[in-house]
Amino acid sequence: MVRPTTDIEAGRKLLLDTIDSLIQEKGAIDISMTELAAKAGMSPGNIYRFFESKEALFEAVAEGWFADRTAIMEAVVGSDLPVREKMYEFYARRYIRLSAYAARDPELFQSYCELGKQHFEVVRGYIDLGDHYLSLIVAEAMEDGFFASFSIDDVVSLINQMVSPYCNPEMLISLDPYLSEKKLKIIIDTIFIGLSAQKNSPDSVEMSLVN
Amino acid sequence: MVRPTTDIEAGRKLLLDTIDSLIQEKGAIDISMTELAAKAGMSPGNIYRFFESKEALFEAVAEGWFADRTAIMEAVVGSDLPVREKMYEFYARRYIRLSAYAARDPELFQSYCELGKQHFEVVRGYIDLGDHYLSLIVAEAMEDGFFASFSIDDVVSLINQMVSPYCNPEMLISLDPYLSEKKLKIIIDTIFIGLSAQKNSPDSVEMSLVN
Repeated sequence: MVRPTTDIEAGRKLLLDTIDSLIQEKGAIDISMTELAAKAGMSPGNIYRFFESKEALFEAVAEGWFADRTAIMEAVVGSDLPVREKMYEFYARRYIRLSAYAARDPELFQSYCELGKQHFEVVRGYIDLGDHYLSLIVAEAMEDGFFASFSIDDVVSLINQMVSPYCNPEMLISLDPYLSEKKLKIIIDTIFIGLSAQKNSPDSVEMSLVN
Repeated sequence: MVRPTTDIEAGRKLLLDTIDSLIQEKGAIDISMTELAAKAGMSPGNIYRFFESKEALFEAVAEGWFADRTAIMEAVVGSDLPVREKMYEFYARRYIRLSAYAARDPELFQSYCELGKQHFEVVRGYIDLGDHYLSLIVAEAMEDGFFASFSIDDVVSLINQMVSPYCNPEMLISLDPYLSEKKLKIIIDTIFIGLSAQKNSPDSVEMSLVN
C-alpha cells in the first residue's frame, strides 16, 4: 500500500473506501454525493474538492476495479510468451481473478456488476481497452501465419464471442460450475486451429479441411 | 389457431392470454393467483380448476414460450442435413427467432427473461432438453469422425460455451449488434475443425497442427 502523500489524495481515498462500504452494505443503489459526504464525515460542499462530479467519482471507482485487469493485460501483451500461450494467459489470468472475486463475496460482486450496468459509459472505455490489447495479440498471431483469411477486427469480434463466458462477469457467475482453465485452453486452441484453417470468401465461408 | 374444444382448455387459454397481458403491462412482477383471476374475470377459487398451483401455471407459460424452440430442435435433429449444417441450423434458427422477438418488443422480451430467472427450476428442464438434442448431433458428428478425442459431454459443454452469445437470451440482447449468421457459421466451422484436430491427453491438450 502506498500512503497518500497529499490532502487531496487522502480525501479521495477516504471517499473511495466509504463508497465501497456503502456498496457492501446497501448494494448497487443510487448513492447521492450528500449521503456519501455524510457517511465519510464531510460537509456536502467539501466532497467536491475531491471529486468534481458524481461521474468523476464513478470513474475513480471503475479505475480501482479495473486496475488489476489492466495490469494483467499489459503484462501478458508485453511478455515473451509464444502467441498462442499469450492469448490463453490473456483470458486465463483475468478469468481466475474474476472467478476468485465472485467466490469470495458473491453479493458484492453482483453489486459491482449492477453498478457497471448503471454507468456503462464508463465501463465501455475499459471494454475498448481490452479489445485494443486483444487486437495486438491477434496482429502478432497473424504475423505467425494464423487467422490469415480474416481482418483483425473480425478475429477480435469472433474471439470475444467464443470466449465470452470467461470474461463477461455475469456469464461467468451463471456458468461458473461448467468453466475451467482446461476448457479455456481447449477453446483457445480450437480458435487458433479452426479459424486459421478457414478460407473467408465474400459470400460464403469455405472450408480447407477435407469434409 | 386451433379452437379450444373443452371448457378446461378455454379457461387455460384465457388465463395464459391474461398473464401475457399482465406481463406486457407490468413486467416480470410477482403475479398472485387472486390478481390473475380478477383480471380474467374469474372468482379466485375458479382459477384452480384450470391450474392447480402457481407453479403449474408457470410451467404452462414456459411450455408456450419454449414450444417453437423445441419444434425447431426436433425438426433440425430429425432432418437429413449433413451433420455440420445440422449443427449450424440447430443454433441459427433459434438465434434468428430470439433475435426477431427481442427486436419486436425488447421490454416484453426482458420481462420474460426476468421471469425465467425467477422460475429457473422450470427453465432448467428446457436447457437440459437442448443439451439432449445437442448430444444427439454431437454423437452423429463423432460417427463421421469429428471430435474424436473428447467425450460427448465434454463436446456439448465446450460448444455451449463457444456459442453462448447466440443462445443465451441476455447475452444475445447485450451483444446483438455484433452477432450475425455469418459469424455463427464461422464459429461452427471453427468448432468442427479446431476441436477435431486436438488430441486430448489427461494432463494437457496437445495440438496436432504444426505450430
